Amino acid sequence: MPAAIDFYFDFSSPYGYFASERIDELAARYGRTVEWHPILLGAVFKVTGSAPLPELPLKGEYALRDIPRTARHLGIPFRPPAVFPIATLNPARGFYWLRQRDAKLARAFAQVCYRAYFAEGIDISDPERLAVFADSLGLDRDAFAAGLGDAAVKEQLRQANERAIARGVFGSPFIIVDGEPFWGSDRLAQVEKWLQMGGF
Amino acid sequence: MPAAIDFYFDFSSPYGYFASERIDELAARYGRTVEWHPILLGAVFKVTGSAPLPELPLKGEYALRDIPRTARHLGIPFRPPAVFPIATLNPARGFYWLRQRDAKLARAFAQVCYRAYFAEGIDISDPERLAVFADSLGLDRDAFAAGLGDAAVKEQLRQANERAIARGVFGSPFIIVDGEPFWGSDRLAQVEKWLQMGGF
Repeated sequence: MPAAIDFYFDFSSPYGYFASERIDELAARYGRTVEWHPILLGAVFKVTGSAPLPELPLKGEYALRDIPRTARHLGIPFRPPAVFPIATLNPARGFYWLRQRDAKLARAFAQVCYRAYFAEGIDISDPERLAVFADSLGLDRDAFAAGLGDAAVKEQLRQANERAIARGVFGSPFIIVDGEPFWGSDRLAQVEKWLQMGGF
Repeated sequence: MPAAIDFYFDFSSPYGYFASERIDELAARYGRTVEWHPILLGAVFKVTGSAPLPELPLKGEYALRDIPRTARHLGIPFRPPAVFPIATLNPARGFYWLRQRDAKLARAFAQVCYRAYFAEGIDISDPERLAVFADSLGLDRDAFAAGLGDAAVKEQLRQANERAIARGVFGSPFIIVDGEPFWGSDRLAQVEKWLQMGGF
């Protein structure tokens, strides 16, 4: 069986959200699965010296136009969140806590989080909100809430960030196919061609 | 007649080169012309705090992979130049000197420069090389060489940089269609849809 595609993203990244709505289906067309890796761009920015989009002069203003337009272009539901960006420590930890138990459920949780934040404007940095999602996925709410503070989960997220940086990840989404890196939701056509032709 | 599309680029920008190979044809399909505006990203980076791609940690290494791959994806001839980036003061000044005389010739000169640098590895920062291009376009070589130092031409380039920054240009290529900004050669599909539908 061919190796999974690696999909790195931050829960506060709109372009990561766009890719999350396409990547599994795209991979499946070529018999591939996707491993989802939430990371914290804050950790990455310490290495690159970059900053969240809204803080970047000129580029920040442009992004506020490009993001909703790109959503319309792709036909993906999108509503600009009232607070952007947000701290994504909690959804990322929630993901890794869940993944220890059930990888499919973790992926479902990630999708619920992304859609809640970018299509419904729900603040997914709030652990209470995340516990409601966990509940709706049939999980024990209290165990989930406790899991967000779990030392092993914190360590998993720390390692995910470190491994991402070691692999050259500097933004979100970042997709690695058989060692080939692709940055941005606008690279999905190249990802598809790579899968189809085994490189080009 | 509808307004021209504005195409901002730096002669040292590979993604600007990719867009330059598509933009006129794309615009013409919708009855539009393109005004080419070479600028100096160095002037822009003073405002944004950014830097040339090869200097950016992680992103620089990625770009060296993404650029030739994107060229192959688009089917555009590309050979990684030995020196990258280069100072683009001279080709930009040459363009504005020519544009005072003949806008079509200026555009032809820009295309010759871009292809020479990115498809043939010719150092287009060198005024001697540029004079050869001018000669091949039927221009007086000495007048062109003198034009590169012309005060009015320097002023035009300075104003082009200033106007670009005032309009929010922070990278290359940057395309403005009826006030709507698009950054990157990967936004050409959105530019096309915008032209086709008059916005979306």
